[in-house]
Amino acid sequence: MKTLIKNGTIVTASDTFQADILIDGEQIALLGRDLSDGDATVIDATGKLLLPGGIDVHTHLDMPFGGTFSSDDFFTGHQAAAFGGTTSHIDFVIQNKGHSLRQAVDEWHAKAQGKAAIDYGFHVAITDLTEDVLAEIPSLVQAGIPSLKLFMAYKGVLQVDDTTLFRTMQVAAQHGMLVMVHAENGDAIAELIKQHLAQGHTAPKYHAITRPAIAEAEATGRAIAMAGMTGATLYVVHMSCEESIEQLVLGRAKGFNVMGESCVQYMFLFEQDLDKPGREGAKLVCSPPLRQPKDAPVIWQALRDGTLQVVSTDHCPFWFDGSQPGRKPGKELGADSFDKIPNGVPGIEDRMGVMWHHGVNGGRMSANRFVEITSTNPAKIFGLYPRKGTIAIGADADILVWNPDKEYTISAANLHGAIDYSLYEGMVIRGGADQVLLRGHLLVDGGAWTGQRGAGQFLHRNAHAAIL
Amino acid sequence: MKTLIKNGTIVTASDTFQADILIDGEQIALLGRDLSDGDATVIDATGKLLLPGGIDVHTHLDMPFGGTFSSDDFFTGHQAAAFGGTTSHIDFVIQNKGHSLRQAVDEWHAKAQGKAAIDYGFHVAITDLTEDVLAEIPSLVQAGIPSLKLFMAYKGVLQVDDTTLFRTMQVAAQHGMLVMVHAENGDAIAELIKQHLAQGHTAPKYHAITRPAIAEAEATGRAIAMAGMTGATLYVVHMSCEESIEQLVLGRAKGFNVMGESCVQYMFLFEQDLDKPGREGAKLVCSPPLRQPKDAPVIWQALRDGTLQVVSTDHCPFWFDGSQPGRKPGKELGADSFDKIPNGVPGIEDRMGVMWHHGVNGGRMSANRFVEITSTNPAKIFGLYPRKGTIAIGADADILVWNPDKEYTISAANLHGAIDYSLYEGMVIRGGADQVLLRGHLLVDGGAWTGQRGAGQFLHRNAHAAIL
Amino acid sequence: MKTLIKNGTIVTASDTFQADILIDGEQIALLGRDLSDGDATVIDATGKLLLPGGIDVHTHLDMPFGGTFSSDDFFTGHQAAAFGGTTSHIDFVIQNKGHSLRQAVDEWHAKAQGKAAIDYGFHVAITDLTEDVLAEIPSLVQAGIPSLKLFMAYKGVLQVDDTTLFRTMQVAAQHGMLVMVHAENGDAIAELIKQHLAQGHTAPKYHAITRPAIAEAEATGRAIAMAGMTGATLYVVHMSCEESIEQLVLGRAKGFNVMGESCVQYMFLFEQDLDKPGREGAKLVCSPPLRQPKDAPVIWQALRDGTLQVVSTDHCPFWFDGSQPGRKPGKELGADSFDKIPNGVPGIEDRMGVMWHHGVNGGRMSANRFVEITSTNPAKIFGLYPRKGTIAIGADADILVWNPDKEYTISAANLHGAIDYSLYEGMVIRGGADQVLLRGHLLVDGGAWTGQRGAGQFLHRNAHAAIL
Amino acid sequence: MKTLIKNGTIVTASDTFQADILIDGEQIALLGRDLSDGDATVIDATGKLLLPGGIDVHTHLDMPFGGTFSSDDFFTGHQAAAFGGTTSHIDFVIQNKGHSLRQAVDEWHAKAQGKAAIDYGFHVAITDLTEDVLAEIPSLVQAGIPSLKLFMAYKGVLQVDDTTLFRTMQVAAQHGMLVMVHAENGDAIAELIKQHLAQGHTAPKYHAITRPAIAEAEATGRAIAMAGMTGATLYVVHMSCEESIEQLVLGRAKGFNVMGESCVQYMFLFEQDLDKPGREGAKLVCSPPLRQPKDAPVIWQALRDGTLQVVSTDHCPFWFDGSQPGRKPGKELGADSFDKIPNGVPGIEDRMGVMWHHGVNGGRMSANRFVEITSTNPAKIFGLYPRKGTIAIGADADILVWNPDKEYTISAANLHGAIDYSLYEGMVIRGGADQVLLRGHLLVDGGAWTGQRGAGQFLHRNAHAAIL
Repeated sequence: MKTLIKNGTIVTASDTFQADILIDGEQIALLGRDLSDGDATVIDATGKLLLPGGIDVHTHLDMPFGGTFSSDDFFTGHQAAAFGGTTSHIDFVIQNKGHSLRQAVDEWHAKAQGKAAIDYGFHVAITDLTEDVLAEIPSLVQAGIPSLKLFMAYKGVLQVDDTTLFRTMQVAAQHGMLVMVHAENGDAIAELIKQHLAQGHTAPKYHAITRPAIAEAEATGRAIAMAGMTGATLYVVHMSCEESIEQLVLGRAKGFNVMGESCVQYMFLFEQDLDKPGREGAKLVCSPPLRQPKDAPVIWQALRDGTLQVVSTDHCPFWFDGSQPGRKPGKELGADSFDKIPNGVPGIEDRMGVMWHHGVNGGRMSANRFVEITSTNPAKIFGLYPRKGTIAIGADADILVWNPDKEYTISAANLHGAIDYSLYEGMVIRGGADQVLLRGHLLVDGGAWTGQRGAGQFLHRNAHAAIL
Repeated sequence: MKTLIKNGTIVTASDTFQADILIDGEQIALLGRDLSDGDATVIDATGKLLLPGGIDVHTHLDMPFGGTFSSDDFFTGHQAAAFGGTTSHIDFVIQNKGHSLRQAVDEWHAKAQGKAAIDYGFHVAITDLTEDVLAEIPSLVQAGIPSLKLFMAYKGVLQVDDTTLFRTMQVAAQHGMLVMVHAENGDAIAELIKQHLAQGHTAPKYHAITRPAIAEAEATGRAIAMAGMTGATLYVVHMSCEESIEQLVLGRAKGFNVMGESCVQYMFLFEQDLDKPGREGAKLVCSPPLRQPKDAPVIWQALRDGTLQVVSTDHCPFWFDGSQPGRKPGKELGADSFDKIPNGVPGIEDRMGVMWHHGVNGGRMSANRFVEITSTNPAKIFGLYPRKGTIAIGADADILVWNPDKEYTISAANLHGAIDYSLYEGMVIRGGADQVLLRGHLLVDGGAWTGQRGAGQFLHRNAHAAIL
Repeated sequence: MKTLIKNGTIVTASDTFQADILIDGEQIALLGRDLSDGDATVIDATGKLLLPGGIDVHTHLDMPFGGTFSSDDFFTGHQAAAFGGTTSHIDFVIQNKGHSLRQAVDEWHAKAQGKAAIDYGFHVAITDLTEDVLAEIPSLVQAGIPSLKLFMAYKGVLQVDDTTLFRTMQVAAQHGMLVMVHAENGDAIAELIKQHLAQGHTAPKYHAITRPAIAEAEATGRAIAMAGMTGATLYVVHMSCEESIEQLVLGRAKGFNVMGESCVQYMFLFEQDLDKPGREGAKLVCSPPLRQPKDAPVIWQALRDGTLQVVSTDHCPFWFDGSQPGRKPGKELGADSFDKIPNGVPGIEDRMGVMWHHGVNGGRMSANRFVEITSTNPAKIFGLYPRKGTIAIGADADILVWNPDKEYTISAANLHGAIDYSLYEGMVIRGGADQVLLRGHLLVDGGAWTGQRGAGQFLHRNAHAAIL
Repeated sequence: MKTLIKNGTIVTASDTFQADILIDGEQIALLGRDLSDGDATVIDATGKLLLPGGIDVHTHLDMPFGGTFSSDDFFTGHQAAAFGGTTSHIDFVIQNKGHSLRQAVDEWHAKAQGKAAIDYGFHVAITDLTEDVLAEIPSLVQAGIPSLKLFMAYKGVLQVDDTTLFRTMQVAAQHGMLVMVHAENGDAIAELIKQHLAQGHTAPKYHAITRPAIAEAEATGRAIAMAGMTGATLYVVHMSCEESIEQLVLGRAKGFNVMGESCVQYMFLFEQDLDKPGREGAKLVCSPPLRQPKDAPVIWQALRDGTLQVVSTDHCPFWFDGSQPGRKPGKELGADSFDKIPNGVPGIEDRMGVMWHHGVNGGRMSANRFVEITSTNPAKIFGLYPRKGTIAIGADADILVWNPDKEYTISAANLHGAIDYSLYEGMVIRGGADQVLLRGHLLVDGGAWTGQRGAGQFLHRNAHAAIL
C-alpha cells in the first residue's frame, strides 16, 4: 500500500517547506518535490498544510467516575478524536484499591480491545501504594507504560498522601519513568465542600468556589518540590491558573525536571460560566474548575514561551442528559448538588481546531509551535518519538491534510462522539483537516468516516524520554 | 519606686533622639531633657543608647524532646536572656496527644511558676486536633494566648495533616488568633531519614541531607496557601533559606496575611559546619537544619526590607555533654546516629549582641530596624504592643542601657544559661547592655545579676494584633 | 511661650501611645501623662491624634513655566499647605542656563523672602552643567541645600544628557548629596509630540499619548543604572506607573542606593480623564501624565511595603482660567494645543487628607505608615531629621491635632491657595487637622488662619542623610 | 551535479531521524531511506549526524577599527568559518559619517567581491542619521539588507543618540526591518575611561572596569523601551551578563518584539582573565567586556529556555602581534593603554565546536536546540529561512556531516583564519564536521580545504521575518 500526498506544505515543530510525501506501508518513506509512483494512491494537497496527527495525552474513555462511566468508549472517542485531527491518545488506567497495577492494565486493554480506531497508549494511576505495588512499578516499563499518575485530590477516593508521592517519584526516577500529578490540595477541598454543603450551597458554582486556584497552586508547588528532592521527571496535568504556572516557573528556574500542560477549556470558559441559569453550569464541571478571565492570557503566554509544553483536553465526557435511552447516567446525577455532578468535559474532537484558530489565526503562536504543543512535544515527552509526533522519514504516516481555509461552526449536532453538548457551541473556526491518515490509512476523508473499528494499535512507549 | 535615666539617646523602631526617661513604678512616665526627680534612682546613660528590651518570640525552655528536656528551665533561661538584653519571651506549650489544650497550658504555667525572672507568654502547639480541641481553641484568647503553632514535620510525633492545618486556620481567623507553622515536609523527611539510616548514614551531616531546603520551601508554600484560602494570619517560624523566603514573597504579593521570622544561626553557620570532626556537628543540629552560605545574604536582605518581620532564636538548648552530674541528657544521646540527637541550639543570650554587631555595625540595617525586628515587631505581631516593644509614655519600662562601645568575645565560659557550648564561640562583638531593666527593675547591672527569681510575669496577650 | 497639648494620642512612624505634649518655645520639651504647666496655653486633644506636621518635598511655588508662573507664591502656597496639615516643604530652584547655581538660589530666596508662612527648603535643579557649575555643586551643602535635581525630559529646555547625569551623580556621591531625577525619555517624547502635532492631534489626551509609561520606565532604569555605577544616592520623583516601579524594585534588589516617591494624583486620576469634554482635560495635564487604573494598586502596594518611601504632590498649580483679572496666565494658554498647556496640578492642600482617608481609613496602610511616608521619611531622606518628621523630645513642635472623625468634602471653593479647581472635587474625606502647629505656633485653628506671613523659616538641611 | 549522503541521522531544530539526503544541484531534493542515484557522488555518513550549516549573524571581516582593520578578510574569515562548520554569515556594513548608506554597502560588496567562499549577507550600521539617510533606509530592503545596527556606545565615533534610535526604529517598524543594537551606555563609559586614564590606569583590566555590566543593562533596557514605544522588532547583540538578560526578560513579558543573542566567549572567559600577566589580557579585549563567572550559567539558561534566540561570535579578530611582516597592526596598538587596544576577538571557527561540546555533550541543551540557536533561528530571524537554517526539501544543501566522536584540541596553530591566538587554546572538544557542504559543494573534506575563493554568494534577505 502506497500513498502519495502531492503539493502540500509540510509543517513540523520547527520547519515549514513544500514537499510531496510518499507513504509506503504505514511509514513515511520519501520526501521530495515532484514525486511520482505508479502504485500509489494520490492525494492532492495543493494549498493545504500537512501536519503530524494530533496526540492527546490526557483522556478518560470509558472511565468509571461517581457511579457512572464517561460516555465515550474506545470507539466513539476515537471517532471523535479522528474527526478532530487527533490520531493518537494516551488514556488513564486507574488502579482499584487493593488490586495490582497489572489487573488495572488488563482491564483497560480489554476496554480498548476490538474497538480502537486510532492508536492509544496508557498511563497508570496509582491509588494504593502497597509494598507489592511499589515493587510492581518497574514492570510497567516492559509493558510499554512508562508514565504514572498520582491524584493529590479526591480525598478518600483517588487521593494519595505525600509519602506515596515521594516514594513513587523515587522509583520512577530510577527507571526513567514519568510522574504525572493532578495537583489540587484534596484536604482543603474536602473541608470546603463539607462546609458549603452544610450551608446548603449546592449550585454548580460551588464546585469552583470549593476548589480555589490557590489550592491548585499549592499542590503544584508540592509536587514540584518532591520532584526536586527525588530527581524525578514530573508532568503537571491540566494547569488552569496563573498561580500554579507561577510555581512551575520557579521549579524550572531551579533546574528541576518539571513540565506542564494546560487544557483547551481553561482559555475559553471561566468560573462565572458555572453560574448560568438552570443546570447549564453542570456541563462545565471539571477539576480543576474553570478559573478567571485573567488566567487565560497567562496560559497562552506559557504555551507560547515554553513554560508549558503541551495542550491536551482531559477529555472525560458525560451526557448532559444521561436519562435518555441508551445513554449512561451523566450530569443529571448532580441535579441536586454540585458534588454529585460527574467531573469532566468533552473536548477530544475540538482541540486541534480551537487551538489552531485562536492560537495560529489569532496571532498567539506560529503554526510550528501549534504542531509542537499538539503533537511533537506529546510524542517526545511520553516516549513515542520519533515514531509519532512529526513528519519525517521513518515516522508513522499519521498526517493531517489541513485546510487553513476551511470554515465551520462548532456544534454538538455535528460532533462524532457520544456527547450531547459542546463547550464551544457556536464558535466559528477557520482551519481543519480535509483528510486524516493514521499509519497511512485514511480515517477521515472530506468529512466521511473511512476508519476501521479495531484497527487502532496499542502504543508501547519508551522510558527515559525527553525532558523539555 | 522611681528611676531616672539621664542623657541617653533613645532609639525606637523609627526614631532616634536624646531624652531623659523617668520611670515611675513599672512604666515610663516622662520623657524630656534635663529631667530631675529627687525620689528617683539615677542611671547615667551619657554616651549610651536606650533601647526597648528584646522580645524573643521563639523559645523552648524545659521542653521535652527525644527522651530528655531542653537544658534551660524558666530561671536559667531567663537569666541568660536578661544578660543578653532580652526581657520578654514567648515559649511553646506543647499539647500531649489525647490531652486538652488547657492541660498543656497548666503544665507550662507550672514550669514557670516561681522561677520566671523575665516576662513570658505562651503559644500553644496543637498536635492532636479532635473536635473537642477545636472547640477549645477560642478559650485560649481568654487565657491570654492568642497564638497557635502547628508542626508540619516530625512525623508520628508532632506533625499534623493538612486538614488540621486548614481547620485550625479557619478557627484562628474567626477569633483573631495567629497561626505559626514549623514548615518542613515531614513525610518526605521521614522517608529520607529511613533510607539514609538503612544505608548506615549516621553522621550529623545527614541531619541536613535528610531535610533539604526545598522540603522547607514546600511546606512554607503550603501553609501560605492555606492562609490564603482561610484568611488566617500566618507567621512562619525559623525561615532558613532563599527557597522558602521566595514563597513568602509570593504570598505577601498576593495580599495574604503572611509573615515570617528567621533565627540568628541561619546567618552564621552552614550545612558544612555539621561535618566538623568528631561529634562537634551534634552541637549544630536543629530543625530546619543549617543551610548554605548563599542563603545568609538573602535572609539579611529580607530582614532589612521587611519581607521578614522578626529575628528570633528558636532557643532550645541541650547539653553537649549531658552525662555530667546534675545535667539532663543532651546531644550525646545521638552519639550513634544523627536521628537521636536532640534537635535544638542555644541562642537566647546571643541574639541581641550578634544581630547588633553584624546588623548595625555591619551596615546591614539601621539601629531603628534592629529595634524593630528584635522588639517592636514581636510586640506588635504577638499582641503585646504598646505595653512592650518600644520606649514610649505608658509602656513597661523594659529598657536596655546599650553601650555601643562595649566589646566582648562570645564564649561558652561566659554564658549564663545551662549550656556548655556556644554557636558563636570566639566571635567578637561590639555593643551590649550595661544595664537591663524590666518594668523598671534592674535585672542586670554592669555584668552583675540584680534580678529576682519569680519576679517575671505571665504576659496576657491580645488577639487581633497587627499584621505587618 | 509654652503650649500643652493634653490627652491626645501620639502617632509616630512606629508608635502609637497616649501622652500629653509640652512645648517650650519652638520645640517639644516633655512627653508624659497628666502633665500640667501653669504658664502653658492648653489645647485639649481628647479623642484626637497627634501627628508630626506633613512635609511635602516636591513643590513648585512661583515657578516659571511655559511663559507664565505657577499660581501659588510662597504665601498662598504656604497657607494652602498649612490648612492641609503640611508645615514644611522643599521647593525646586531652577538654574537658568548660563547662570550659576548661586544666582538661582538667590532668586528663590528672594521669592520666599517676607512671604513664607511655613518652613521651607530648596533643591537645586541643574540645567546647564559647565565646569564652573560642577565645581560649584559642593558649595550647596554649606548653603543647606544638599539635594540636586536633573530633568531627563523637556528637551531643549530643562533636559540634561547622560554625561551630565553621570558627572553630577559622581560629585553628589562624594559630598553626601542626594540626586533627584524627573525620569522620562525626553528624546522619544519630543519626537512623539512633533509627530502628533503634525497630524493635528492637539487635544489634552495627546499629552499622555506622547509620554508613554515605558518612556518613564526607561529613564527610571537609566538613572538607577547611573546611581549603581557612581554609588550616588538617587531619589526618583513622581513615579507614576508599574513599569517604572518595576525598575526601582530591580535596582533596590541590587543594593543600589535608590529610592522613590509617588504623588497623590497618580492613585486617583487616570489617562482617560484627560479626554473629558471641553478643555476639562487641561486641568489634569502634568508630567509624567496620568496613567492607567491598573497602576494605582501597584503604587499603593509600593507605598505600603517600602518600595516607595514618600508620597508628595509635585504641587505646581496653574489657574484653569488665568484670564481673570489679577491672575497669572494659566491652563488657557493651551487652549489650542496640548503642548502649550502649562504642566502641573495643585495638591499641596489635599495630600494629607486624601492619603489619610484612602490610605488609613481605606485599610491600605496603618496610621504609622501614613506618618512615615508623609513626614518621617521625607525628613530623614532630605536631611531634616530629627528636627522635623516626628514627635519626639527636642524636635520642632510641628504638630497636627488630627481629628479622625472630621468629615468634609473637597471643593475648589474651600481651598486656600491661588487656584480655581481641585483634582478631587467632591471627594468626601474623613480625617483632618483641627489645629496645626509650626514650631509651637498655631497656624490654623479650627479652620481659621492664625499663621503669619514671613514667619516661615528657611530649612538648612544636612548632607549625608539616611538612605531608606 | 548530485550528491547522495547515505545513512546519516538528520538533526533539525525539532527532529532527529535517520534518512539519506539526495542533493540535486545546490538544493536538497530528496529525503528517504535506502536512496540510490547512479549519477550522484556518495558520502557515507554512517554513524554521523547531518546538521544544517552554521549561520553566524555577527561578524566583522575586514573591519576598520582604531586605526587598523580586523585581520580576517572575506576569504580567510570564510575559510575559518567553513572549517568550523559555518556556511553563512552576516557582516556589518558601517556607514561613514556624511556618507550615504548605499556608499557603505557598495564598499562592503567590494570587500567580498572575488573572495567570498561561504555565503554572506550584510547588516547596515547607521552612524549618522540625516534626513537623507532616514529616507534611504527603506531602499535597503530592496537591496536585500533588511537589518540595521545602531551603536549606543563608542562616543564620538559610532554612538548614536536616542532620537536616532527612536526614529530609526519607527522607520524599521514600517518596513518590516530588524533593528540591532550594541547596548552599552557610551556616555558613562566615556567618562569612566577619561577618569581612569587620568589616574594612569592603562592595563587591559581597565577595559572591563570602565564598561560595567550595569552600563550594558541600562542600554539594553533603553533599546527595549524604544522598541516597545515604536513597535519595532529589536535584536540585542552580544548580551554578556545577567543584568541585561533581566531587562530582556521584562521586555518579552510585556509582549514587545525583542530578542537577543549572546556570544560564545561570554560563557568561557571572565573579567579576571583580562588581568593575566604581561599583555595577554589584550587578547581578550572586546566590547562588551568579559564579565563574571556568575553570568555564564545565566546565559546558558537563557539560550536553553528561549530567552535568547541565537549564539553568535562577534568575530572581529586582530593579530596579537601585528608587527610581523604581512600582518595588519593588531593588539600591540594598545601596548601602552587599554583604550588603544583594538576591540574584538576571533571565534568564527570555534563557535560550532565549543557550543556542541559544552552545550550538547555538557548536558546543557539538546542537539536540536544546538541546531536551533546556531542555524535555524539565525535564518528565521534574519530573513534567510527556509532557504537556509534547516535540512528540508528545497533548502540550500548547506550540510555538516557531523562526527560526534571526533576529538580535537583547540589551538591557534590549527586555526585557518588570519589570527595568531585562540580564546580557547587547549580546550578539548568532542564533535566536529568531517565534511562541510555549501549549496551541495564540498568546502571541507576530512580536514582538507575543497572550497573555492569567490564561490560564496551574497544573501539577499527578506524583510518581515519571524519574531521568535
